[in-house]
Order: sequence, then C-alpha cells, then structure tokens
Amino acid sequence: MVWTDGSGITSKLCEFALACRWEDIPDTVRREAVRSLVNGFGTALGGAGDAGVRSLTAAMLKFSAASTTSLIGRPERTDMLTASFLNGAAVNVFDFDDTHEGTILHPTAPILPVVFALAEQAPVSGQDLLAAFVVGVEIECRLANALSPGHYRKGWHITSTCGVFGAALAAGRLLCLNGAQMHAALGIASAQSSGLVETLGSMAKSVGVGASARGGLLAALLAQDGLEGPRQPLEGPRGFLAVMSDGVDAAAATQGLGSEWELLRNMYKPYPCGVVLNPVIDACLDLRGEHGFDAARIARIEVRGNPLLKERTDRPEASNGRESQVSAQHAIAVALARGSCGVRDFGDEAVADPAVRAVRSRIAAVTADPSLSVDSIVLRVELAGGEIAEKRVDVPRGSLGRPLSDGEIETKFRALAAFGAPDLDCERLLPALWSIGESADAAGVLALAR
Amino acid sequence: MVWTDGSGITSKLCEFALACRWEDIPDTVRREAVRSLVNGFGTALGGAGDAGVRSLTAAMLKFSAASTTSLIGRPERTDMLTASFLNGAAVNVFDFDDTHEGTILHPTAPILPVVFALAEQAPVSGQDLLAAFVVGVEIECRLANALSPGHYRKGWHITSTCGVFGAALAAGRLLCLNGAQMHAALGIASAQSSGLVETLGSMAKSVGVGASARGGLLAALLAQDGLEGPRQPLEGPRGFLAVMSDGVDAAAATQGLGSEWELLRNMYKPYPCGVVLNPVIDACLDLRGEHGFDAARIARIEVRGNPLLKERTDRPEASNGRESQVSAQHAIAVALARGSCGVRDFGDEAVADPAVRAVRSRIAAVTADPSLSVDSIVLRVELAGGEIAEKRVDVPRGSLGRPLSDGEIETKFRALAAFGAPDLDCERLLPALWSIGESADAAGVLALAR
Repeated sequence: MVWTDGSGITSKLCEFALACRWEDIPDTVRREAVRSLVNGFGTALGGAGDAGVRSLTAAMLKFSAASTTSLIGRPERTDMLTASFLNGAAVNVFDFDDTHEGTILHPTAPILPVVFALAEQAPVSGQDLLAAFVVGVEIECRLANALSPGHYRKGWHITSTCGVFGAALAAGRLLCLNGAQMHAALGIASAQSSGLVETLGSMAKSVGVGASARGGLLAALLAQDGLEGPRQPLEGPRGFLAVMSDGVDAAAATQGLGSEWELLRNMYKPYPCGVVLNPVIDACLDLRGEHGFDAARIARIEVRGNPLLKERTDRPEASNGRESQVSAQHAIAVALARGSCGVRDFGDEAVADPAVRAVRSRIAAVTADPSLSVDSIVLRVELAGGEIAEKRVDVPRGSLGRPLSDGEIETKFRALAAFGAPDLDCERLLPALWSIGESADAAGVLALAR
Repeated sequence: MVWTDGSGITSKLCEFALACRWEDIPDTVRREAVRSLVNGFGTALGGAGDAGVRSLTAAMLKFSAASTTSLIGRPERTDMLTASFLNGAAVNVFDFDDTHEGTILHPTAPILPVVFALAEQAPVSGQDLLAAFVVGVEIECRLANALSPGHYRKGWHITSTCGVFGAALAAGRLLCLNGAQMHAALGIASAQSSGLVETLGSMAKSVGVGASARGGLLAALLAQDGLEGPRQPLEGPRGFLAVMSDGVDAAAATQGLGSEWELLRNMYKPYPCGVVLNPVIDACLDLRGEHGFDAARIARIEVRGNPLLKERTDRPEASNGRESQVSAQHAIAVALARGSCGVRDFGDEAVADPAVRAVRSRIAAVTADPSLSVDSIVLRVELAGGEIAEKRVDVPRGSLGRPLSDGEIETKFRALAAFGAPDLDCERLLPALWSIGESADAAGVLALAR
C-alpha cells in the first residue's frame, strides 16, 4: 500500500517535507528559525528550574532506556523519546515560548526537542537541522491555519494537537524517510493527536505538549520500521481535519507551501504571562523609566483596554504565581514596584511581596473599552500630590509590529538561564546557537546547554 | 489545590474508583470480568502472531528501560509503560476482542495491560486485580455512554479516547491513589486522549489503542508523584466531554454508578471479522453442519440482511486478509468451504485458497432488506440438482441474546494461542485464568502466558 497519489493534503505536505531544500529557504526564514531556537533554548533553560518539570523529569527517568539524548539545562541524559517529551514540556511550561500569529500555536515546543534528539543519534549539519525545523513548523502551523479559529475556541490545545504532525515530518526529514514512510508517519501521528485547553494552568498541559513531541518522533521511527497508517489521515472523512474542527479551511493547509513561510508570523514574548498583558506591562515599564517615580508615591491606578483584557485578566486577588500570570493587577503592581517582569516576578514569592501588594492595592479599575484593539491600552497613574502620568501603547513589544530584537531575545535568554540553570555558561552557548547554521554538527550546542 | 468537591463528574468517578469494594461487585459482574480477561488473553496471544504487532514490539524494545513486565505470548519483558502499550495493541489488533454493547468500545484492551503490569511490580490478589479491572471498564464505558452515538460517528476511536481514563483509574486503584491524586490522574489522562476512526484497518489504530493503555498508566504514576491536572478535565467548558462530542448525555457518566454494571453489556466475538457478519457466518456453519453437503455441489448463494450488511460488507473481490474481514462474500465462502472461521480463515492465504474462491464465485447477491434488523439475516443456498437449503438467523452468536459460553471462549482462546503462541501450554494457563479470583498473586498467570 503506497498512499502517495499526490492529490490529497497528506501527500502534498509529505511532498513538501521531502522536497524542501536549504537553498529554497529564504534568508529571512532561516534567521527566524535561529531566533526561534535561541528563544526556545531560553525557555527550556528556564523551564528546567520549574518544580513541575523537575517532578516530571524525576518520574520519567525511571522509564528511559538509554543515555543518548540531552535534557536542556539538566545534567541527566535519557533515550530520545523521553528527552523529546521532557524538553517539549520544558520549552512551553511557562507559556513564555514563541507564538504563531493568528493561531496561538507555540511552534517551537514540539519541534525543537525532536530535531535535536535526532541530531544526537547521528551527526547532522546545522543547515539540515534548521531545514527540518522549518519544515516541522511549516506543517504544524499550516494545519493550525486550516483549523483556526474554531479548533482552539472549541477547546483543543492547538500546540499539542497540530504539533505532533510537525514533529513527525521534522523527524522524517532527519531520518531520510521516503514518501510512503512520511505518509505513514502522519497517519501514526494522527492516532496520537491530543490536548485540551482545559488543562492550561496545570502540569497536565505540559504532559500534552511533551507527548506531541514524543508522539511525532515515535510516528517517524515506526514509519521507518515499516508500520503503515491510513490513506487519508488528515483529509479523510474520519480524519484529523474533519474530526477536530467544525469549520475547516482545507486549502490553507497547502496554499503557498514553499513560497509563504509561517515562521515569519512567529512572535517571541517579552514577559512570562498572558499575551494580552504585554501592552500593559510595556506602559508600566515605560512610565516608570520616563518618570522615575517611587512606587510608594502611587495613589491610584487605572487601566483601559479591549474587553478581552478585562475578561481574561481582571483578577485583583491572584493568590499564587500560576494565577498571577493572568492577573492585570499583579502585572501592573510588579512592573511598577520592581521595574522588571521576568519569571521570578510571576512566582509565588512575588505575589506575596509586600512592596508589590502595596501597589496592587492602589489599582482602582481594569476598564473595558471596545474602541481599543487587543494590542492597545491606556494606563493612568495618579501620584500623591495630584500629579498624573498617562501612557498609551498601541504596538506592544513582542508583536509582529515591534518584534523583540536579537539583543532582547538574548536578555530574555540570560534571565531564564539564570533562573533555571544558573551554572550554565551563556557566553559559550549563545554564540553557538546564533551560529548553528554554520555548524557541521548541530548537536554540539547541547553539550553547552547541560 | 484539592479538586474533590464531589459535585462534578470527575469527582464522582474518582469517588467510585476509591469506594468500590470487592464485596460491592455482584457475582455476575465478577464472572464477566473473568470472561473478559480470558477472552482478552486469547486475543493478545493471537495478536502476538501478527506481523504488525511483531514489528511494533521490535521497535519499542529499544525504548524499554527495564525487564519488569511481561508481554503476553512473547518471551521478552519490558518496562511497564512499554508493556502496557504493546499488550494493549496486541489485545485489539484483530478487532477480535470484546465489544461494549451500544458504544462499540472494546473494554478490555486499555485496561487488562495496565492492571497486569502493576500486578507484576508489587503483589496483587486476584480479587484486587479484578476489582481494578471492573472499575476501569466502568469508567471508560460510562464516558462512552455519555458521548454516544455522536462521538464514534464523528470519527473518534472510542476505545482509545475513553480507554485512557479507565486505564488511569484502574491503575489508580492498584497504586492506592487518594482522591486528589485520582482527580489529577483523570486530568493528566485528558491531555493524552486521542484516536481516530480513520486509522482503522491500519497499524496506526493499534498505536492509538496501545497509547491509551500506556497513557492511563502514565497519568496515574505522575499523579502519584504529585503532578496536578485541571479542576474539571471531564466536565469543564474546554474539557473532554464538551470538546469531543457535539451531543453529550452527561448524566449517563454517573447514573447508576455502583448499582448498574457496564460489564454486563460486554460481548465476545465468535469470529475475527466485522460484527455484522456474525449472523451470516452462523447461518453458513449451521447449514453446513445440518446438511453436511459438499461445498463443490453449491450452485448459487444469496444472502439478505439489514441495509448495513450490504453497505459495510458487499465486497466480492477482497484481495487480502485485512480486507476479507469486512467481506460478506469471503466470510460466506470460507465458512461453507472450510466449516471454520478463525484467524487463519481471514488471512491472505485463505483469501487465495482455490476452494474458497470457488465457493465465492457462486455468490449471486448480498441484498438489502430494511425489514430485517442488523442481527437478522436469511441465507439461501441452491445445490446442484435444484435442492435448496435456507437458514434464517435472528440472534447471532456472541450477541447479548446468545453470549458465547465459557466453553466457546475457551475454544476461541485455544485457536488464537495456536496461531500466535503455539508453544504455550493452554492446559496450565486457562485454569489459572478462570480461577484468578482465588489467586493471592494475580501476576502468576503472566508467567504461564509467555
């Protein structure tokens, strides 16, 4: 049974995964792939310091068959399936990884672990690794485009459900699968596609994301061994697209394949919290920097934003770190009190910090203003004595209109590394990551990331 | 965070899983649990002889961390996650395992591997193992009731999607999880629930079924280690029930819990093929037995049945074993030619057998008759010389109205063992399985099943 008739979505995606050459990938896309990897290594290093990820790692070490593959930011090594699972969970655990515009898919979490795991089994050049990464991101984001917005809205965690297919073909590239094997890999991936939005805010989410990386790699390995899947895993009447959404734009999965690149719609978060809070934090940090006022002088704070801001983040009483990530009140308070918004500023300690709580108590209102877009907010701070400072933000940091610079990604990386892997030598790892495209053995960076 | 407020479906299922005692389980249910296990061991032993399962096993052995757990019908041992995956795949690979009436879920495949895997890690009495099995089946079948018929019809492979939850709580029982951990286990299971009907007929289906057993066990193990899930994995607005079906009868998940038992709706297939073919094969075997005619004398065959029979199985030209499992023409021909309908009779060799093909060529029509129920068929055979034999079947073997006897399950078991594990001593294994309820160490049967 060879299913490569070429007419269906499955065949077209496999064909692209086989045919795409390094030479075909524009410089802008190559550069964005490297930025995604640097950002992804950063969030994985930060994730290595998370208690949930540590607990997950301890549990999975018992089920690792070999010490062939690195865990980013940790001394242990595991087999490649286990490493894919754990690294996938770590990249995404804080939701501080990258975001694909329009679908809210986190592109790097399911793919990065798989391409590096395979690079440790047999030498792979940086260009081959980057090309496999680009292919994987292209596949998962295009499936997400085909299913959006109904899929996520219904309750599917799109990173996990679509990521497993991208991971399968990224792995298929590095395993040099033929067309029929690529097709089978997507079929075997389809049996493992899972993930619910309901799990967000708990470690169950990370099990789902880790499983998408592991499941994609497993699908490619089993396809390489000759296991077969269905003829139409994506487009069939009981296939992925029909089952996992009520409204499918099937053409979006393949149109412009090889000429339009989803990586160019990838965004890097400046702050480890809900993305609607980005302009709020921008305004706080800018205002604090410009006016240099003492937080103790703040008398009253108001913020106006799109109704989504109020709906998602009006939480005056966030009681722990996880909850503070979706609290406008905490975000404003910590930004104004500390002048920083890193991982430590959204932890249990920051929530309990008296200086932060003092500012939080001055926040009068989060107001919904339908005339503002989701990217726009207006912050108004009254100081003791009646002085008023106001700031409007329309293009937040980290959006496609104001992307993080390479330098800002580095700063984020260093802060995350300091949090999760303080012994790591960033001065060796960062240059190695930025120049991975010139490397003859891409796995070299992993030795620097442990 | 302790989510055991008791009001939601998740809490109620966890409470049942914690509270259900051996003394609470009626004799009829205990007996059906044993019958399910005997049937499940039989189909797993048969599955061990399948080329796809062998290939899957070879691939997964590379990712097994330990030799603590038995593979049914094979000499190798693996870690318990790998064994759960492989045994789950083997039980169900031929679709010859048990079927829950009304939902078409195969109850044993996700649960049996998990309870036996845990019984090999620390001694478990036969009663404790059976109680955990009953709990697991109850959970998965009740979730299936809540989602049926929309869930399967939409394209979800219900055995995989619901099985992972049953496996999680069956494992939770044997791991002695508390209420909060049980709740977390369902949450972690929800992130892994997957499986598409489109994969049926390929080994990707078996990856899905194996993953449901493995994923359920993993969920329970991670919950035991303190990992947390969402508050409402099943009933939440983006939880399993809301996301995975368009029409949910939520009450069906919990009503009668502990007083009505889904195992009493479990059926065992007499033949390794599409269930709508059961009455057709019954009629062929009965007619052949009653009349004792030589197949060479057959001139013309007709069968009438519910339109579903024609829709699903009118395949005059089945070209291989896998396809023959859903071909009325092959089923009739092999039953009349050979007088048997076992695993070997639905393989490539049987499809190519000239004696079978000769009978097949005499089949004139598969006719749709809306006046007949799906359980009813009328078979008409004309012999050379004009003699006519006719047989009507209304209650097929293996249905709830005419369940397989213990003896018939044994006969099926022996045939499957002879196919997949010919060196096995059924005379020791079968009595040990039938009397597992009296065993102080339930894992003892695994030593006899390798």
